[in-house]
Amino acid sequence: VDPALPQLSLLDRGFTLADGLFETMRATGGAIFRLRPHLDRLRAGAAALHIAIPDDLDLDALVAAALHRAADAGLADAAVRLTVSRGPAAHGLGARGGRATVVLLVQPPPRFAPDIHERGITAAIASGRRNERAMTAGLKTLAYTDAIMALAEARARGADDALVLDTEGHLAEGSSSNVFLVLGRTLATPPLSCGALPGVTRAAVLELARGLGIAVAERALVRRELRAAREIFLTSSLRGIAPVVRVVGDGGGELVVGDGAPGPVTRALVEAYAELVRRETSPYAGGTP
Amino acid sequence: VDPALPQLSLLDRGFTLADGLFETMRATGGAIFRLRPHLDRLRAGAAALHIAIPDDLDLDALVAAALHRAADAGLADAAVRLTVSRGPAAHGLGARGGRATVVLLVQPPPRFAPDIHERGITAAIASGRRNERAMTAGLKTLAYTDAIMALAEARARGADDALVLDTEGHLAEGSSSNVFLVLGRTLATPPLSCGALPGVTRAAVLELARGLGIAVAERALVRRELRAAREIFLTSSLRGIAPVVRVVGDGGGELVVGDGAPGPVTRALVEAYAELVRRETSPYAGGTP
Repeated sequence: VDPALPQLSLLDRGFTLADGLFETMRATGGAIFRLRPHLDRLRAGAAALHIAIPDDLDLDALVAAALHRAADAGLADAAVRLTVSRGPAAHGLGARGGRATVVLLVQPPPRFAPDIHERGITAAIASGRRNERAMTAGLKTLAYTDAIMALAEARARGADDALVLDTEGHLAEGSSSNVFLVLGRTLATPPLSCGALPGVTRAAVLELARGLGIAVAERALVRRELRAAREIFLTSSLRGIAPVVRVVGDGGGELVVGDGAPGPVTRALVEAYAELVRRETSPYAGGTP
Repeated sequence: VDPALPQLSLLDRGFTLADGLFETMRATGGAIFRLRPHLDRLRAGAAALHIAIPDDLDLDALVAAALHRAADAGLADAAVRLTVSRGPAAHGLGARGGRATVVLLVQPPPRFAPDIHERGITAAIASGRRNERAMTAGLKTLAYTDAIMALAEARARGADDALVLDTEGHLAEGSSSNVFLVLGRTLATPPLSCGALPGVTRAAVLELARGLGIAVAERALVRRELRAAREIFLTSSLRGIAPVVRVVGDGGGELVVGDGAPGPVTRALVEAYAELVRRETSPYAGGTP
């Protein structure tokens, strides 16, 4: 369909109440890196929200068909977004019947600065907090208004992205990414109980680090550990691994991470991640899910 | 327009990221009760999110025209929802340009139990918390997924609505309503700093209580004050004042409020509120905003 043409009902609860979920994925050479965990997370979220994905809809087949057509149209490298909402309904929060809306968008990948892995980015600590005890904690729902505001605030302060703390002051995540710190010889990342989403790239990076013999820890990280970190990076499906070389505090102070350039652990993981994506999305991958 | 026909772009950020705001209002006899504060709140939220409401769009005139047509179609009593989103955009959280989407829906009012004021309702304390320190605290954004889950959980526990605590354990609000407690001779309601939205009905009830000589307090309320409360009620634009006669705790315990029926303060306010709505929406109201 032509995404510029109107397709959605004004009554769609995805629009009226953010009553739905989504996945953002990266297609490389016509294949999606780790499609399986993305679809698993979407299905788990739909089950938690009691949104029934229509029985007659095979998400795997839908994605495969869309990727095929996109590759034919010259979009073998793409940003792929799969959205599921509860569908149209009259007013009220009560979640009744209806048929879920499923939208698959294949778009050209966003253009990040080409030297992001050499120069790194700046992240600003958001003034608002992420709620690790929300009803929807751990679900990738459509409710991204807080993340939008955190990113807008960060940009207004000259930063490229936000770092968001949970309500107890622990590091949670970036505006739409997971966060990692190199502390001594350990690679640490917040646990899901601190408001981190269970990111697909996060899981891949934890795997890769273990494979490289790097000690990893999923533990609560307090704000002052940003200062102790030798390296910091953010992970997400579209941007991959983004080294953070400068942190702007919510009080206005600034912090240079390490020597102000991406460090050796980050660089090793950037390389290993690129290789992993190449391997798993290669046409010779032999069906590795 | 026919709301059953597709009208919205799949790229609308209201659908993809809950990047927008809304107001729900009650039309009575073709007039909206307190339209001005609803539109003011919407405009303030749009300013906070940096969403530009198109200059060529007069919201007051739009609402007036829609109400006129709705009354002609037999919908003088209606639920009116005004939604503003940032409009269509390609992927990414960054909030760039585009033209805002403005949707006005006039629907038949929801049917609440006719004896709600005599029998009251049951509210269940939600297992998840409301984030009083969110970036969007105090804004009526489209991000209602948490409220949807809180209501679904409450209904699964046999209750009619949810009571949600903030991250520090103070009472915040209902799933989409403000909450009031009668404590001794005082009518108390959580302040906005505890995650309460600045409800239009909440403000009207505070006004009415003062007019009736009832002491009012906006202050942080802890959970055990539910047990001390002689009366509890919820307020919202569509349902008005809903007496809460039973509270189901998140640990499974139950609490009967007062003698299990709407108390005298609640009943006095229900009557005064109905009279206020009648007066202000009457065709002889003489333009009182």
